[in-house]
Amino acid sequence: VALTSWIPVADSSPFPLQNLPYGVFSAGHHRRHVGVPIGDQIVDLTRLVHDERHDLAEALSGPTLNPFMALGRPTWTRLRRWLTERLGDEAHRPAVEPYLMPLAEAELHLPFAVADYVDFYSSEHHATNVGRIFRPDGAALTPNWKHLPIGYHGRSSTVVVSGTPIVRPSGQHKAPADATPTFGPSQRLDIEAEVGFVVGTPSQLGEPVGVADFAEHVFGVCLVNDWSARDIQAWEYVPLGPFLGKSFATSVSPWIVPLEALEAARCDPPPRDPAPLPYLRDADPWGLRLELEVELNGTVVSRPPFDTMYWTPAQQLAHLTVNGASVRTGDLYASGTVSGPRPEQRGSLLELSWSGAEPVTLDDGSTRSFLEDGDTAVIRAWTPGDGGVRIGFGEVAGTIAPAHPVREG
Amino acid sequence: VALTSWIPVADSSPFPLQNLPYGVFSAGHHRRHVGVPIGDQIVDLTRLVHDERHDLAEALSGPTLNPFMALGRPTWTRLRRWLTERLGDEAHRPAVEPYLMPLAEAELHLPFAVADYVDFYSSEHHATNVGRIFRPDGAALTPNWKHLPIGYHGRSSTVVVSGTPIVRPSGQHKAPADATPTFGPSQRLDIEAEVGFVVGTPSQLGEPVGVADFAEHVFGVCLVNDWSARDIQAWEYVPLGPFLGKSFATSVSPWIVPLEALEAARCDPPPRDPAPLPYLRDADPWGLRLELEVELNGTVVSRPPFDTMYWTPAQQLAHLTVNGASVRTGDLYASGTVSGPRPEQRGSLLELSWSGAEPVTLDDGSTRSFLEDGDTAVIRAWTPGDGGVRIGFGEVAGTIAPAHPVREG
Repeated sequence: VALTSWIPVADSSPFPLQNLPYGVFSAGHHRRHVGVPIGDQIVDLTRLVHDERHDLAEALSGPTLNPFMALGRPTWTRLRRWLTERLGDEAHRPAVEPYLMPLAEAELHLPFAVADYVDFYSSEHHATNVGRIFRPDGAALTPNWKHLPIGYHGRSSTVVVSGTPIVRPSGQHKAPADATPTFGPSQRLDIEAEVGFVVGTPSQLGEPVGVADFAEHVFGVCLVNDWSARDIQAWEYVPLGPFLGKSFATSVSPWIVPLEALEAARCDPPPRDPAPLPYLRDADPWGLRLELEVELNGTVVSRPPFDTMYWTPAQQLAHLTVNGASVRTGDLYASGTVSGPRPEQRGSLLELSWSGAEPVTLDDGSTRSFLEDGDTAVIRAWTPGDGGVRIGFGEVAGTIAPAHPVREG
Repeated sequence: VALTSWIPVADSSPFPLQNLPYGVFSAGHHRRHVGVPIGDQIVDLTRLVHDERHDLAEALSGPTLNPFMALGRPTWTRLRRWLTERLGDEAHRPAVEPYLMPLAEAELHLPFAVADYVDFYSSEHHATNVGRIFRPDGAALTPNWKHLPIGYHGRSSTVVVSGTPIVRPSGQHKAPADATPTFGPSQRLDIEAEVGFVVGTPSQLGEPVGVADFAEHVFGVCLVNDWSARDIQAWEYVPLGPFLGKSFATSVSPWIVPLEALEAARCDPPPRDPAPLPYLRDADPWGLRLELEVELNGTVVSRPPFDTMYWTPAQQLAHLTVNGASVRTGDLYASGTVSGPRPEQRGSLLELSWSGAEPVTLDDGSTRSFLEDGDTAVIRAWTPGDGGVRIGFGEVAGTIAPAHPVREG
C-alpha cells in the first residue's frame, strides 16, 4: 500500500493519502458532485468514475453520498482501495490529473441527506459540569447516566453544512427571579463541540444492531457543532427535553472520514463502573483518540479530548436500536459535547465561562460568556498521529447573524 | 357544490363526498398509487389523472403524497374541486367508474415520506394526569406548561402505517425499589391516542411561520398512535426527554384528511390563562371538534374529545418555528395524547388504569393495565356532524407481537 501520494501533501494538511474523506462540492454553476480532498486539491470523483465507466458511477453521481453509503462496508472498502491505488501510484497520474482542482475553488455542500438525527450526552465531564450548573441542588449526574448512553432526537431538517450563517434564535426565556417568561433573541447562545457518526447500511425495524456490528452500519465520522440557546433550553426542557433551544441549527463539517482511516486512532475508553448491561458490553471497543480544537474569533479557547468519552459510538448505536428502532442510510448521531477533565478542555461556552461567572478572554482582549452577533466559532479535529500520519477532519465553522424580527400571531 | 356522490355512501361510512382524504395504496402486485376513498370504493387517482392528462399527473404519480403536498394550498384546493365535481356529478360517471375498485381490496401504505416528526404534549388533562402519576411529589404541570406548547422530536424512520405489527420493545427499566436497572421486554407497553398534522408547503430556515399561516403550510390531518413503553421511558427520560420509550414505533392512519374537509369542525379552544405571548395569540383559532374512540380488543375503552386541547395545531406550528427552524414537506407533528376531563375520556392506558392501580375491564371479562402480546388497539375519529355530514378519519390499528431476543454485545 502506498504511503504517500504523487499529489504533494503538506504536513499541515488534514488530507493525506491515509485520510480520503468524502464530501459533496460544486464549482462555478455546475451541479453537485462527490469529491475527495487530498492535500490542497480535490478529486472530482463523480466525473472520474463516470468517465472510467466504474460500476459505482451511478452511486457516486451525486448530489449526496447516500446512494454510495447505502451499499455497505465491502463496497466502501473496495472503492477506498481503488482510490488509494490511483492517488498513491504515480502511474495513474495522467488518468487522474484531469479530475483534480484546487480545493479552495470548491463550494462545499451538506454531504448527505440527513435521515434521523440523534444527539447523545456521553462525556462524563460535560454531563457533570452541566448538572452542576443547571441543577446545583441535585446530584450532578442523573441516576441513569452510568447505565445507558442518554440521548434524544434532534431536528434533521436544520442540519446545515459548515459555513452556513447561524441566525440567532428567538424564543421564550425566564430568569429564575422573573415571574413570567419574556420573548426575544437568545442571550445565551452557545456552541457544543461534538463528533458525529453517519449511518450507511440500514437495519430492519424490530432488529437491534449489536455493539460488534458498529462498523457494518456506520460509514464514517464528521464534526458537529450543536448550537444551543441555553436560556431557551433551560425554560423548556423539563419534562420532555431540549427542543427549540437546539432545533434552529446544527452544523456539520463537509467531510465524512471513513472508519477505515481511523483504525490507528482506536483506543480503550475510560473504565466503566458499574459494568454496563450485556447489550452494551464491548469486547473490541471503539474509543477514538481524536483531539478537538475550538476556536472563537481566531482564539483557540479549548482542546477537548475525544478519548475521554464514557460511552463509545458503538455503544450508542447498540443502545439506539436495542428497542427495535431501525436505522436508515443518512442517519446522523452525535457524541454529545466533548469535554475533558480540565477547564481548558471543555466543549461549550456554558462550561468554559461557567454559565457566565468566568468569561473567556480572547486574543483581542475582549471577553465572552456566550456568543455575540458576528462571532465565528470553528471546531477542528485531528488524530494524534504519533508514529504515523495525522488524519484531519477539516473544520465546522459558523458565524452568528442577528436575530430576525418575529411577527405577532 | 354537490352534496352527495353518485357512488353510494352508507351513513356509517367515514368517507362521504365532503371528506375525500388522500392515501397511497396498491392492489395485487402493482406499484403504489395515490387513492381517494369514497364510501366503500377507492378512486385510483394516479391512473385517473394520468389517463386524463391532468397537469398534476406527475405530482400524483406516487409512491407518496409528498410531490403533491409540496405544491401548496391553491393547488390542493384546485384538485379538491376537480375531484368533488367528478365524484359529485353523475355526468362524470362513465369517465371515473373504470378507476374505482373496492376499498377492501386495496393494500394501504404509509401515505407520505416522513421528514421530521415532532410530538407535542398539549392536553392539559393528559399532562396533569401524567404529572400526578410520574411526579407525585411535585406540581402536576411544570411551570412552563401554560406558556408554551411543550414538544420534542421523535424518530421519523419508525413511523409506520396502520396495521403494521408492533414488536414489544426491550430495554432498561428500574423499579423505584430496585438498586440497579434490569434489561428485558417492556412490561408497561401503552398507547397514546393523538391527532397528527402533515406539512405540505415548506418554510425557509430562519423564517418563523406565524399562527395565521397554519393553513398555508399544513396539508391535512391523520390519526397517530404514539406507542409508549412506560417503564423504559420512566428510567431514561430525565434529563433529555423520551427516547427509546417511544422510538420503536409510531403508527399513523392511512388517510390524510384535507384541512378543507374540517372547516365545519373548527371551534374555539378552551380559554387560555395566562394569555399566551404575542407569537402564540390566535385571532382565528384552530380548535377542532373531533371525537376520538379508543378500542382495545373490540372494547371501546375511551372517547377522548379533541376540542379540549389547550394548544391548537396552529399554535404548535408557530412555536415549532419561532426559533427559525424550518419545516419541510412531509413533516409530521402530533398533538400529544388527547385526554378529556372525565376518566372515560383518557387517551392512554397509563391514565385509564392509573398506572395499574385501576385496571380496565374488557367485554370478554379480562382486564388490562398495559398491553399484552396479541392485543389490538384501534383509534378512530369523527367530526360530530351536527347539522351536517360526519367526516371520518378511518382508523389507526396495531397488534402487539412478542419481543425479539436481543444478542449480547
